[in-house]
Amino acid sequence: MVFSPFLFIFINMKFSFKNDYAEGCHPRILEALSATNLVQQNGYGLDDYCLNAEHLIQKKINNPRAKVHFVSGGTQANLIVISAFLRPHESVVSPATGHIFTNESGAIEATGHKVHAVETEDGKIRPEDIRKVIDVHQNKPHQVKQKLVYISNSTEVGTIYSKKELIDLYQFCQENNLFLFVDGARLGHALKAETNDLTLEDFGKYTDAFYWGGTKNGALIGEAIVINNEDLQGEFGFHLKQKGAMLAKGRLLGIQFQELLKDDLYFDLANLANQKAMKIKKSFQEIGCHFLSETFTNQIFPILNNSQIEKLSENFDFYVWKKIDEDKSAVRIITSWATSDEIVEKLIAEISSLRNS
Amino acid sequence: MVFSPFLFIFINMKFSFKNDYAEGCHPRILEALSATNLVQQNGYGLDDYCLNAEHLIQKKINNPRAKVHFVSGGTQANLIVISAFLRPHESVVSPATGHIFTNESGAIEATGHKVHAVETEDGKIRPEDIRKVIDVHQNKPHQVKQKLVYISNSTEVGTIYSKKELIDLYQFCQENNLFLFVDGARLGHALKAETNDLTLEDFGKYTDAFYWGGTKNGALIGEAIVINNEDLQGEFGFHLKQKGAMLAKGRLLGIQFQELLKDDLYFDLANLANQKAMKIKKSFQEIGCHFLSETFTNQIFPILNNSQIEKLSENFDFYVWKKIDEDKSAVRIITSWATSDEIVEKLIAEISSLRNS
Amino acid sequence: MVFSPFLFIFINMKFSFKNDYAEGCHPRILEALSATNLVQQNGYGLDDYCLNAEHLIQKKINNPRAKVHFVSGGTQANLIVISAFLRPHESVVSPATGHIFTNESGAIEATGHKVHAVETEDGKIRPEDIRKVIDVHQNKPHQVKQKLVYISNSTEVGTIYSKKELIDLYQFCQENNLFLFVDGARLGHALKAETNDLTLEDFGKYTDAFYWGGTKNGALIGEAIVINNEDLQGEFGFHLKQKGAMLAKGRLLGIQFQELLKDDLYFDLANLANQKAMKIKKSFQEIGCHFLSETFTNQIFPILNNSQIEKLSENFDFYVWKKIDEDKSAVRIITSWATSDEIVEKLIAEISSLRNS
Amino acid sequence: MVFSPFLFIFINMKFSFKNDYAEGCHPRILEALSATNLVQQNGYGLDDYCLNAEHLIQKKINNPRAKVHFVSGGTQANLIVISAFLRPHESVVSPATGHIFTNESGAIEATGHKVHAVETEDGKIRPEDIRKVIDVHQNKPHQVKQKLVYISNSTEVGTIYSKKELIDLYQFCQENNLFLFVDGARLGHALKAETNDLTLEDFGKYTDAFYWGGTKNGALIGEAIVINNEDLQGEFGFHLKQKGAMLAKGRLLGIQFQELLKDDLYFDLANLANQKAMKIKKSFQEIGCHFLSETFTNQIFPILNNSQIEKLSENFDFYVWKKIDEDKSAVRIITSWATSDEIVEKLIAEISSLRNS
Repeated sequence: MVFSPFLFIFINMKFSFKNDYAEGCHPRILEALSATNLVQQNGYGLDDYCLNAEHLIQKKINNPRAKVHFVSGGTQANLIVISAFLRPHESVVSPATGHIFTNESGAIEATGHKVHAVETEDGKIRPEDIRKVIDVHQNKPHQVKQKLVYISNSTEVGTIYSKKELIDLYQFCQENNLFLFVDGARLGHALKAETNDLTLEDFGKYTDAFYWGGTKNGALIGEAIVINNEDLQGEFGFHLKQKGAMLAKGRLLGIQFQELLKDDLYFDLANLANQKAMKIKKSFQEIGCHFLSETFTNQIFPILNNSQIEKLSENFDFYVWKKIDEDKSAVRIITSWATSDEIVEKLIAEISSLRNS
Repeated sequence: MVFSPFLFIFINMKFSFKNDYAEGCHPRILEALSATNLVQQNGYGLDDYCLNAEHLIQKKINNPRAKVHFVSGGTQANLIVISAFLRPHESVVSPATGHIFTNESGAIEATGHKVHAVETEDGKIRPEDIRKVIDVHQNKPHQVKQKLVYISNSTEVGTIYSKKELIDLYQFCQENNLFLFVDGARLGHALKAETNDLTLEDFGKYTDAFYWGGTKNGALIGEAIVINNEDLQGEFGFHLKQKGAMLAKGRLLGIQFQELLKDDLYFDLANLANQKAMKIKKSFQEIGCHFLSETFTNQIFPILNNSQIEKLSENFDFYVWKKIDEDKSAVRIITSWATSDEIVEKLIAEISSLRNS
Repeated sequence: MVFSPFLFIFINMKFSFKNDYAEGCHPRILEALSATNLVQQNGYGLDDYCLNAEHLIQKKINNPRAKVHFVSGGTQANLIVISAFLRPHESVVSPATGHIFTNESGAIEATGHKVHAVETEDGKIRPEDIRKVIDVHQNKPHQVKQKLVYISNSTEVGTIYSKKELIDLYQFCQENNLFLFVDGARLGHALKAETNDLTLEDFGKYTDAFYWGGTKNGALIGEAIVINNEDLQGEFGFHLKQKGAMLAKGRLLGIQFQELLKDDLYFDLANLANQKAMKIKKSFQEIGCHFLSETFTNQIFPILNNSQIEKLSENFDFYVWKKIDEDKSAVRIITSWATSDEIVEKLIAEISSLRNS
Repeated sequence: MVFSPFLFIFINMKFSFKNDYAEGCHPRILEALSATNLVQQNGYGLDDYCLNAEHLIQKKINNPRAKVHFVSGGTQANLIVISAFLRPHESVVSPATGHIFTNESGAIEATGHKVHAVETEDGKIRPEDIRKVIDVHQNKPHQVKQKLVYISNSTEVGTIYSKKELIDLYQFCQENNLFLFVDGARLGHALKAETNDLTLEDFGKYTDAFYWGGTKNGALIGEAIVINNEDLQGEFGFHLKQKGAMLAKGRLLGIQFQELLKDDLYFDLANLANQKAMKIKKSFQEIGCHFLSETFTNQIFPILNNSQIEKLSENFDFYVWKKIDEDKSAVRIITSWATSDEIVEKLIAEISSLRNS
C-alpha cells in the first residue's frame, strides 16, 4: 500500500494545534467532487457550480448585486482585490497585526502599494486610528493617499468586531472616501463566536468588499471574493487572470462553496472549531491562566510559564506566539472542524496537570 | 438530490471538444485525496506528499538536485518563474503564439518584463529567431536585455519539439547567457506523441526550468515548477508566497502529483488523449481535410468549410480557431483522458457524413 | 582655464549629425536662468514660471482647461502619463518604431503594461491598424484590454501626421473608448514642416494628452506634459512624485518653457533645424539619392552605398540606420537649431563630391 | 522687461526659510553652462563633463573603482538605487523619518519593495534597531527578507552620523548580508557640521552606495549616485533608462558637478549655509529656546509658543514642523548658500524681539 511509509510516520507524531489547515477537507466536499467529476463544464469560473455558489452567497448576504469570484488562497485574494481597487498612488491602512502587513512576504507592496500599519492592542482598527494616519499624510502629493482600509474578522489574534464597530468603520470610510475591505479567512469563526452580533447581511451592507474563507473552515482550498461596491466590480476578471488566479477548473472552487453553503455546513464547522477552542480555554482558565487577548473564536492565546510550555509540547504541537518575560510566553492553540473530541479531552487532561508546574 | 437541476441541464448539452479541462480529475486522484484526508500535515508545501512528489520528479528527470514547487495554474507558474529569474531590465523571448504573449492578460508585463514575440509557422522558436531579436536590441541600455527564452511543449498549436531542436535551443541559450524555460502545460501529450524523441531526462538536462502540467492531464489543479539551474533555486519560496501561490493546504497539489507519477498514470492519460485525437484526425483525413498544423498530440486543427462547421457544431462544441478564407476556417478539436470512446465514435460518424458537405 | 583640456580634444573631432541634443541650449535660455536666478520661488513646479508657462501653453493650444506638468525627459513623460492613465489590465497600441516600444528599455512594461507593436511603413499608425489589434484580443479577460494609443509627431523616422490623419485617429479612439497620447519630442519640427497642416490648437482638441518636447529643440532639459482630457487630470502630481519626476527646483523647467514660448522662439528654432535638413536633403537628391522615408522635418534618411558612407564619415558623425542590401544602407542625418550654416555648407560640399563614388 | 510682472509680485513677499531650494544655482554653475554651451558632446551621460565629474568623485572619496551616475533628483536616485539592488522579495529598513518612508509618495513601494520604518528619537538608525526588525521577520518565506538599510546624512531632522556610528552600521550590514545606502541630499552640510568627524573617504569605504546631493547645495538640479560595491555596479544604465532618469543632455548634470567639485565650492557653500543656521540658532538660544533636535547643519528646529510663531511669520516664511502641545510647536528654519547676511540679521533682530512674547 503506497501510503504506508507516511502513515507509519504519523503514528508517532504529536497532534498539531498549530493551525486550522493541517487536514484535508470535510468529507462532504470530497463527495461533491466525486458526484460531479465527469460532468463537463465551462472553464475559468464560468461553470454552473461557481454561478450557483455566487447565487447562494448573494442570498446569504442579502445583496443580489454583489459579484463573487473564487480564488485559491487568502494572500491571492488580498493582493488581487487591493491592486484592482487602487490607483498607483493610493495606499492601504491596516492593523500592525494584519496578515497583509506581517505575513504575506510583501505581496501588497509587490503590486506597488504602501501599507500603513496601525499599532493596536487587540488586532482591531478604529476610525480614530485611521484618522491619525490621514492626519500625518497631508503633504500631498509628496505623501501617498490613503484609499483602502483592510481589517480581518476574526482578527489574526482571534478577536472579533462588533456590529457597532463595523458600522462605525464603514461610515468613517464613506465619509473619508476610503474603501473598506474585510479579510474573512476566518469569517465563520467570527460569526459563530458567542459574543458576535454581526450577521452575513452586515457584510453585504457595511463593506465595499470582503473575502469569505474556505481553506481554514472545511474546504480543500478556496476563498470567495465578494464585491458589494458596484463601482469596483467592473473588469475584475482581468485582474484575476493577470495575477494567475483564474483556475482552468474553477469548478473545484465552485463545487466546494456550493457544498459548504447550500445548508449550514460552513457555520456548523466553524461552530465546532469554536466550541473546542472554548472548552480548551476553559481548562486553561481553571488552572488560573491569563490570556494575551480575549477570544471567543477558534484561536486562544494562553500565557504559560516555560516549564508548562515544555511539558505541554511533549505531546502536542503549537506555536509559542509571544514572549511576555523571561519566565512566560503566550502560546497559540488553534482548533478546527477536524479536531476530534478525543484529542481535545487528551489536551484538557494535560492542561489540568499543568496547574502546579 | 441536490445536483439534479444541473444534471438535467447537461442532458441536452453538446459534448465539448473545446478544451482538455472540462471535467474534474481522474478517479484515482479523488481516491488519493480521500485516503489521506484526515492525516495531519505541515502547511505551505512542506507536507510529505509534496516532498515525495518532488522526489518522484527528481528521479524521473534524472536530476536529484532539481527543486520542485507546486502551484495551482499555468499562468501562475509562468509569472512566478519569470519574475523570480529576471532582474528589472531583462526581457523574455517567446513565440508569438506563446501562452504568455497571447493568453495571460499581460501577466508577465504586470511583473515588469517585456515579452518579445517571434512570428513562427508552427508555434516553435529556433536559435536564429532569438538571434534576430538580440541583433535588433544592441543599443544598450536604451533597449531591454534579452535574458530568458520561453517555449511550450507541446505548443499552443499542438506541435512538439524534437530532441535536436531542444538541445540546439539550450546550447544557444547557454552560449548567449539566456535561460531556457519550458511551459509544459501539455508535457505529457508531447512526450507521448508518436513522433516524439524527447525523454523526461532531457527536460532535467536541457532546460534551466520547466513546469510540468497537471490541470490538463488528469489533475484537479496543479502544475509542478521544476528548477534545474541551481543558481536560480535560491529563495524561490518568497516568490511563491509574494505572488499568492503558496497554498496553506499545499498537500492538495502534492497528493495529486504523487498519484499521477508514482506509476505511469500521468503518461497513460496523455496517451489516451493523444490516441483519441489521432483517431479523429484520421477520420478528417479520410474525408480529404487539410490541417492548419501537423500535430500528433491531443489537439488537431482541421480546415473545414462553413457548412461542414455548421453541421458539426449541431452536436459538438469546439472552437473556430482561424479563418482561412470566406469559405473555410480551421477549427480546434481537443481531447482528454476523459473523452469517452463512445463520444469519439459519434464524432467520427458525423465527420464521415461531412465528406460531401 | 579649466576646460582647456576638453576644448583641445574637440578641435580634432568630427561634427556630429547623430542627434539634436549634442549641444547645450539656446543662449536666451541661459539668459533667462541668470535673470531669475536669485528670485525665491516655491518648489516642486509651483513656482511662477511654471504657472506662467502653463498659461502660455493653454493659450497656444486654445484649451484653458488643459493641465500642464513639466518633467525632465521624454521617457519619463511617457512612462508617467501611461502608468497614470491606465488600470493594471490595460495596454498600449504603438507603431513598432515607437520610442516606447524600441528605445526605452522596457520602461512602460516596467510600470506593468503591455505595449502592442504595429508594423508600419512610415512610422505612423492608422485606425485600421488599431482595429486589427483589438480584433485579435477579443478573448477577454484572457487577453489584455487595449486602452491607449501612442503616436509620435514627428515620428521616429521623421514623418508627420496630417490633420485628417490625427482627427481620424482621435475619432476612432473616441468611438472605441481609447485614449490618444502624442509623444511630441519633436513637435516643433513637425509643425514647421512645409507639408504640415496641423496647428497647436489641433493638439489641444484632438488628443487626450500630449507632451511638448523641449530637450530636442533649444532647452537644456524639459518636456511639458499637457492633459486635455479632464477625467485624466486628477491627482497627477502624485504620479510625478512617485516616479521621481517632481524636481525640487521645478523653476528650471518653467523658466525654459516660458522663454521658448513667450514669443516664437520655439518654432523659430524648429524651423531653423528643418531648413538645414531640407538643404542637406536637396543636395542628396541632386546626386540622385533615394531616401528611406519621405521627410520634411529635421531628420533625413538618405540611402548611400558603402563607399559613400565611408567617405562621408571621414569628417562627419551620423548613424548608419538600416542596411538595405550588401552594398547600400540608409543613414540618418539630423540637424538642430545649433547646426551652423558653415557646417551645413561643408557637409553639402562633401555630399556633392559623392556623386560618382 | 519681460519678468517685471513677476518681480513686482516678489517685492512684497516674505523671505522664505522653508527650504534650501528656493533660489536657482550658484552663479559659477551658470557660467560653466555658458562656457560649454555650444561644445558638442555625447548624450546620455557619456559626455566629457560627466566622465570628468565621475573622476573627481572617485578621487575625493578615494575609491577609483566606484561608479558614478548623475540623476535629476533625490527621489529618483532613491527609487532607482533600491529597485536596481534588490530582488522582488527583499525589503528596506529605514528610520521612520526617512525621506523614502514619509515623503516620496510611495515611490519605493511602487517599485515593489516594502520599507520597514524604525522609530528613532534623532532621525538616526542603529544596528540594534535593524536587529529588531530582522528578529520579527524570521518566519520565512512568509515575511519579506531585509536586504538594504537606508539612512540619510544629514538626516531629515538635521542631525548627523559620527564616524563610529557609520562604521558600526556598515559592519552590522556586512555581517548580516545587508546593503548600506546613504541618502546624501545634504551630504555637504553634514560633512561641514562643526561636530562632524566623517570624511568623504569614509563614504567611499563604509557604504555600498550613496548619493551626493547637488540640488540642495548650489546646483540647479542633480544628484550623483555613487556605487562602491562592485557587485552592484553592473548594468546600472538599464535601470536609469527604464526609470526615465537618463537625460539626453546628461552634460547638464556633469557640468554642474564638475564645477562644484573641481575646487572646494561644494563644501564652501555647505559651510555658508551651516554658519547662517548656527547664527540663527544662537539667537534662539539667547532668548531661551529649546530645540526639537540638536543640530549643527543648515536645519534648526526651535520650539516656539504660538504668539512667537505668529509674530515671526509676519515677515518670514517657514514650516511649523511639529506640535508640541496646545501652546507650543517646533518650527523648521532652513538656510542655504543663497541666504544673505542681511536677511539673517533681519531674522535675528526679529528673534531677539520675541524674548518676552
